[in-house]
Amino acid sequence: MAGRLVTLTTDFGDGSPYVAAMKGVILGIDPSARLVDLGHGLLPQDVRHAAFFLAGCLPFFPPDTIHVVVVDPGVGTARALLHVEAGGQHLLVPDNGCWTLAVTQMGAPRVHRLAERRFWRESVSSTFHGRDILAPVAAHLARGVRPEELGPVVSEWVELPFPRASTEAGRLRGEVVFVDHYGNLISNIPGAAFRELGAGPVRVRVGRRVVTQCVDAYAEADPGTPVALVSSGGWLEVAVNRGNAAAVLKARVGTPVEVVRSTDETT
Amino acid sequence: MAGRLVTLTTDFGDGSPYVAAMKGVILGIDPSARLVDLGHGLLPQDVRHAAFFLAGCLPFFPPDTIHVVVVDPGVGTARALLHVEAGGQHLLVPDNGCWTLAVTQMGAPRVHRLAERRFWRESVSSTFHGRDILAPVAAHLARGVRPEELGPVVSEWVELPFPRASTEAGRLRGEVVFVDHYGNLISNIPGAAFRELGAGPVRVRVGRRVVTQCVDAYAEADPGTPVALVSSGGWLEVAVNRGNAAAVLKARVGTPVEVVRSTDETT
Amino acid sequence: MAGRLVTLTTDFGDGSPYVAAMKGVILGIDPSARLVDLGHGLLPQDVRHAAFFLAGCLPFFPPDTIHVVVVDPGVGTARALLHVEAGGQHLLVPDNGCWTLAVTQMGAPRVHRLAERRFWRESVSSTFHGRDILAPVAAHLARGVRPEELGPVVSEWVELPFPRASTEAGRLRGEVVFVDHYGNLISNIPGAAFRELGAGPVRVRVGRRVVTQCVDAYAEADPGTPVALVSSGGWLEVAVNRGNAAAVLKARVGTPVEVVRSTDETT
Repeated sequence: MAGRLVTLTTDFGDGSPYVAAMKGVILGIDPSARLVDLGHGLLPQDVRHAAFFLAGCLPFFPPDTIHVVVVDPGVGTARALLHVEAGGQHLLVPDNGCWTLAVTQMGAPRVHRLAERRFWRESVSSTFHGRDILAPVAAHLARGVRPEELGPVVSEWVELPFPRASTEAGRLRGEVVFVDHYGNLISNIPGAAFRELGAGPVRVRVGRRVVTQCVDAYAEADPGTPVALVSSGGWLEVAVNRGNAAAVLKARVGTPVEVVRSTDETT
Repeated sequence: MAGRLVTLTTDFGDGSPYVAAMKGVILGIDPSARLVDLGHGLLPQDVRHAAFFLAGCLPFFPPDTIHVVVVDPGVGTARALLHVEAGGQHLLVPDNGCWTLAVTQMGAPRVHRLAERRFWRESVSSTFHGRDILAPVAAHLARGVRPEELGPVVSEWVELPFPRASTEAGRLRGEVVFVDHYGNLISNIPGAAFRELGAGPVRVRVGRRVVTQCVDAYAEADPGTPVALVSSGGWLEVAVNRGNAAAVLKARVGTPVEVVRSTDETT
Repeated sequence: MAGRLVTLTTDFGDGSPYVAAMKGVILGIDPSARLVDLGHGLLPQDVRHAAFFLAGCLPFFPPDTIHVVVVDPGVGTARALLHVEAGGQHLLVPDNGCWTLAVTQMGAPRVHRLAERRFWRESVSSTFHGRDILAPVAAHLARGVRPEELGPVVSEWVELPFPRASTEAGRLRGEVVFVDHYGNLISNIPGAAFRELGAGPVRVRVGRRVVTQCVDAYAEADPGTPVALVSSGGWLEVAVNRGNAAAVLKARVGTPVEVVRSTDETT
């Protein structure tokens, strides 16, 4: 029988041996595991970035997939490590809220705190629980250990406060929550609300800059022109065709984004 | 039976969830697919860079491999998406010419335009056809769907104009077409023509700089010395042993490269 | 039966076709091989960096794994290529010492020099032995070729001189040997020696800077504070909680590190 799918998501980069060490530990326990890299270039120790990353990909995976996530600024402190089951998928994560946004799309979570040391490496460092706890637990799960063997069920965990946009009539207010590899700015303003308001002419403010062209596809605009559109994840996105919106508009995570009808303001 | 090989090549980088979303979609439809990353650090929306990348690797893969390529500046516009079969391998690509250089080494292509929406995700965004069309089509192919089910055969597609070198007697003229990770400059001058002319002493001009040392291996030269040699892909390459030729020679894609006999010119 | 595990470690980066070409060659010979990326962002042509990288991950892998390593500044020269068997694992490496540190943790090595050209690609370039020799040999090994078929046993090879720390009573002297993705500084001072001396108050000098806070976990310190701790690999590490120690302390590989009792010096 083919091995279980085990994915890896970390902020370890590509030049340090940490990702490879986790792969070695997993395959050392379950040589049949089928490893899948989700991404190792997450912003170092940025839990909110990880949350948005995971929300953009985990819901697509099939049941029985095991996801190991290591963006863990609290490693070695009293923060718990969790097993989360949602929609038939399994997450092994630090209890820092990185997973809660993704799971809202996957189904009600059942959560265990990792406590049974017999599934960990014998010697556990205080700086690398990914290798010493999460990787071996993932491999044991892949070999058939049941979640309830890993530790007690818990009913409380850290929820990441995710900023909500305000969508009062005729004016949408939110902020940039993710900047992707191209420099595209993803906001927390729902695409549906933007589409409704954007049926007429609108102005999209990003910090102090104003964007007036709304499109469906990047290439509808001239190269270099900032545009507003609905992102592939369903949020208001500001992009520059063939360019980098973050650089052009001097924006980053946290920059305010506002949509108003053009007729509602002068200038 | 082991799953089908499905490779992924994108310009999505390593910190955005887009690659991972495609993997989830593929495995969600065919959990037995065996994913292989070819590269996700391709230059953003640079079709010519993608063309050279693919030409340097696709011909080595075995028949039945399915390759998904997403370097797609025209996403969401009327540009087609294609299934290309060549040498028994399968490519799923935007119709922007990124694949034509590679296929010249693989055999006559048979091309279908993707049109059958039953193999796509139910909801198709206008900014991420990689996730919503190419990934699910790849997974259906992996499960046994035949190419002719995907859409109609087409006989026209975008050919990428690839600059050809001139190889008149005693003088080779071309340009830099690829700069690799080390800063090595790969030209479009065939290695065979360079070897023939280079049997005697030659001068290799790269922009305004002149390189006079020809070698077989990088380490034959002193560290820091620019050298000309035949690349692993069979082209004239200019490199700097233990250094970065692009930086040292201030060259980039498009910089002219010329080879002349030393005796044919004065200094 | 599931295919053999074949790992890849290179300094090829993520935007050049070289990694993908090797994958194609391996799968072209053994389509059942299960490829695992260890890292492709190793410092270009930095054998010492590769040595530390491999020591941090290879020992965790199961027997029968085949590791292909291409950090190879001497490609095309007379340097040999080796098959190394240690602890039941197989390494295919250039004879430049990149593997000797890892193998000290894996068992006595049995070493063959690759000489049998029938396991190589028919045409061997002088700049890419990873694709033309190491990859096909890995695939043939995966299909069952025995190491002794690859070439003659050798008893001499390049050992990488790895700087040793001095641990005289009350004073530890070493240097930074690795800087990871976060900017953490890993030294060659054994963690055990540091723990013993650090039972009392100590001063850790990194170049001209002094660190006085010793912790078990990064997050015990205030953000931005430099701390000394034992790394996940068992060495004295200097880090900055939520920051980049290499930047903050202006340190890099080779920077001297010294630990002394606080009571042993004035200031």
